[in-house]
Amino acid sequence: MKLRVRAELVYRFDPPTDAIYKIQVAHWPGQDILEERLTFSPPIQAHEDEDAEFGARTLRCHMSGEVTLTYGAVVDNGVLRGLPLNVSQHDWGDLPAEVLPYLSPSRYCPSDQFGRFVTRAFGETSGGARVLAILDWIKANIDYEHGVSDTETTAARTFIDRAGVCRDFTHLGLTLCRASGIPARAVSAFAHQLEPPDFHAIFEVWLDNGWWLVDPTGLAPVEGLVRIACGRDAADIAFLTTQDRCEMVRQSVTVEAA
Amino acid sequence: MKLRVRAELVYRFDPPTDAIYKIQVAHWPGQDILEERLTFSPPIQAHEDEDAEFGARTLRCHMSGEVTLTYGAVVDNGVLRGLPLNVSQHDWGDLPAEVLPYLSPSRYCPSDQFGRFVTRAFGETSGGARVLAILDWIKANIDYEHGVSDTETTAARTFIDRAGVCRDFTHLGLTLCRASGIPARAVSAFAHQLEPPDFHAIFEVWLDNGWWLVDPTGLAPVEGLVRIACGRDAADIAFLTTQDRCEMVRQSVTVEAA
Amino acid sequence: MKLRVRAELVYRFDPPTDAIYKIQVAHWPGQDILEERLTFSPPIQAHEDEDAEFGARTLRCHMSGEVTLTYGAVVDNGVLRGLPLNVSQHDWGDLPAEVLPYLSPSRYCPSDQFGRFVTRAFGETSGGARVLAILDWIKANIDYEHGVSDTETTAARTFIDRAGVCRDFTHLGLTLCRASGIPARAVSAFAHQLEPPDFHAIFEVWLDNGWWLVDPTGLAPVEGLVRIACGRDAADIAFLTTQDRCEMVRQSVTVEAA
Amino acid sequence: MKLRVRAELVYRFDPPTDAIYKIQVAHWPGQDILEERLTFSPPIQAHEDEDAEFGARTLRCHMSGEVTLTYGAVVDNGVLRGLPLNVSQHDWGDLPAEVLPYLSPSRYCPSDQFGRFVTRAFGETSGGARVLAILDWIKANIDYEHGVSDTETTAARTFIDRAGVCRDFTHLGLTLCRASGIPARAVSAFAHQLEPPDFHAIFEVWLDNGWWLVDPTGLAPVEGLVRIACGRDAADIAFLTTQDRCEMVRQSVTVEAA
Repeated sequence: MKLRVRAELVYRFDPPTDAIYKIQVAHWPGQDILEERLTFSPPIQAHEDEDAEFGARTLRCHMSGEVTLTYGAVVDNGVLRGLPLNVSQHDWGDLPAEVLPYLSPSRYCPSDQFGRFVTRAFGETSGGARVLAILDWIKANIDYEHGVSDTETTAARTFIDRAGVCRDFTHLGLTLCRASGIPARAVSAFAHQLEPPDFHAIFEVWLDNGWWLVDPTGLAPVEGLVRIACGRDAADIAFLTTQDRCEMVRQSVTVEAA
Repeated sequence: MKLRVRAELVYRFDPPTDAIYKIQVAHWPGQDILEERLTFSPPIQAHEDEDAEFGARTLRCHMSGEVTLTYGAVVDNGVLRGLPLNVSQHDWGDLPAEVLPYLSPSRYCPSDQFGRFVTRAFGETSGGARVLAILDWIKANIDYEHGVSDTETTAARTFIDRAGVCRDFTHLGLTLCRASGIPARAVSAFAHQLEPPDFHAIFEVWLDNGWWLVDPTGLAPVEGLVRIACGRDAADIAFLTTQDRCEMVRQSVTVEAA
Repeated sequence: MKLRVRAELVYRFDPPTDAIYKIQVAHWPGQDILEERLTFSPPIQAHEDEDAEFGARTLRCHMSGEVTLTYGAVVDNGVLRGLPLNVSQHDWGDLPAEVLPYLSPSRYCPSDQFGRFVTRAFGETSGGARVLAILDWIKANIDYEHGVSDTETTAARTFIDRAGVCRDFTHLGLTLCRASGIPARAVSAFAHQLEPPDFHAIFEVWLDNGWWLVDPTGLAPVEGLVRIACGRDAADIAFLTTQDRCEMVRQSVTVEAA
Repeated sequence: MKLRVRAELVYRFDPPTDAIYKIQVAHWPGQDILEERLTFSPPIQAHEDEDAEFGARTLRCHMSGEVTLTYGAVVDNGVLRGLPLNVSQHDWGDLPAEVLPYLSPSRYCPSDQFGRFVTRAFGETSGGARVLAILDWIKANIDYEHGVSDTETTAARTFIDRAGVCRDFTHLGLTLCRASGIPARAVSAFAHQLEPPDFHAIFEVWLDNGWWLVDPTGLAPVEGLVRIACGRDAADIAFLTTQDRCEMVRQSVTVEAA
């Protein structure tokens, strides 16, 4: 699917601070960037990196005062398949080594605490069927609602609160999958038809020798997702991380069929 | 320094479960393995991996019943230098990309909560001086004591409890360094002259283009440390991780000058 | 029902410390103490109080070295009725003032976090039917198991863990009732036919102008319960609270039909 | 000191809900109410209670739609003394029974976790000197700042955050006093010269046979404090508690010399 994505981030950095942006479309196999443009206003010297594993790109820069980052790209995100029920789960011994870290609990995903719950709730299933059962449980039990969670909310808390936003749905999905012995990692994305338009948080699971992207909120069709970055949880994939506090002036994201 | 390390781990796996061991000496530059031997009794088929970044080795196997793992090695761990006061801290833009994940908060290290504390307590310092100030603070404020913490204890809790073991000291050190903008990662190790002998948890910080190993407990001389594995915190470097529960029958570790 | 209760508590207090015991049968209306005897060995000067609300008795003393407290009583605990489905819930305006504190969250019962869950899970019910639905949910979802929780475990954690002991069952029951607008308080008790015999933690709810005792573990028949003390949660009803740490040497509780 | 206090609370209750207000000046010995007036607009039927221990008054009512509560009083708050260094701390055995609950940890005050910290930080002191040392520590280590905490913040979190508002200062003070074996309870108050004017949260400690009021923020002179309600922590003394959510339209508090 060809998509045109745009993001404008206007932030005030006072005092000056180091910043890390993760907002560019990833160089992920099957996801082709046809056009792309990024500008800082005023102009800023940025250091760009790309990680070998995911093709995620990181911009690092020293920021001061009010700065506008404008990013636009035209992307063909290829063919994204929904997760089938019958893809099988690997024994740990059969996982590629680079997938192992996504079994570990992380800052917002204390999967070590959910072993008994996943066995009770989903014990009959494994592989694709287990992940789909987890997504069904989340859909049936968690309300999509702003104002309940904040940037410190963990999956443990969302499990109690029974409400949250895409970040929280993703943390809970990651937690329940890892507790089930399934490698799972957080993915930031542009998402077609997401209402209201914003950066989206989703996740992917490793089953049957591949990563399968799922949207635990069910808010955006899987075929309209464009990968940006991946990591253990929101701590790794934030679109903006700064050492000192900064203030959002305004921000907009749009995703359209191209 | 030439050291002879030995570990014997006897565990009962009932029900059968997938397991991940991280107990072999790492293939870390400057740390030479002169002899090495690993046996399972009864014999077990294990899948061995080595990560590219650290040279840490991972053994994965499916375990059942009571199994004894015996490991021995003779190692020349090279020359390990103590951290000097004057090594400088990098701006984020000057860090190698592979070091960035060690700035993020992790399962046991909520460094995002400690920004104000580190500025108040250590705000005058940076680089080596900051890390040494953090180690001094830990030494002055935290008691080394068994029975206060358990495998779920976070650095936030140790900061309140004011007591813990090597794992907790390491989590608190990692947390305060990351909150200070310094990449820091957990390291498991064999440690000469550690009393009582056991696997040790320490950490290393990235300053002046290199990793510097520090022992926040001060219990083992830095020159007698032998690296095993590294990661974000204890969730990544446990010497044994299993999907189902297992039971320790007995375990011993010894480290001697060779 | 006439019951003979006995408790022997042998503790070592080193260093010397202030202690509060709550182990005597309460002077609760309808619960008659026919015989009673309490001795300290060696003899200790204790200050005894009785609270006006519940008739709970508190022994305060300064302890040193190893001390044995032996308590025995014969009690007629009257007629304890199981909670019927159809007892009605009060509007807050109709509650007696002394009952209001039992609507508040407490140390181990963060009922303020469970509003959405109780509405989702039990929203159709109120009064006795709501409490019985909560007890059914606990029975269906929480395993009675030692070793999962400790003295710091909150109801929030038990809700995640899905396992615990009588203290945890009680905290979760209190939390879900208070989140439902029903006053609920923790009660310590002697319990006939509890296996293994021990002090028991249960709770009671205020409905239809009276307190109704319930056992969320279902381990002891309601007609064999003998009230000791009551409070907001385990912080108030511990059978022994000390300012410094103390060490249990041994402890036994027995309850027999008299 | 003669003070004129006024409060206007405009809230929207949608859906209708039970509510508990605690905003009237307490009938505390030595605190005389010279004039007083309370109105609801539109008129509401309210049930008023007064607790025997503190003279705190509670208004309970069923609310619906937008309601304005206006309260005004002229009070002579008597002579409030600052806490002297040399008032002595009681052994637990010498405390009145009604004071004992204020030794227990509570929802926002996990004093059970701070035993080691208070011994390390304040171990040399007891009684008035201990409380004053605690207040000095809070003043030196905690920033008064809005936006760091919210209504769920516990003293454990404020101890880490090193910032908060009057509610957080009070919770931390309560926690450190109870961990020191000193009964301490939360008090809501009108406060002369508090800037900006608002309901204030302070606390009082039981030493030398009396309650001593202290303001851990140091923002209001002790002689201008007027007691409203007391309890274990903010869960008990909120000026407005509702079963369903409600929305503040506007609120104002003024306190002037009369």
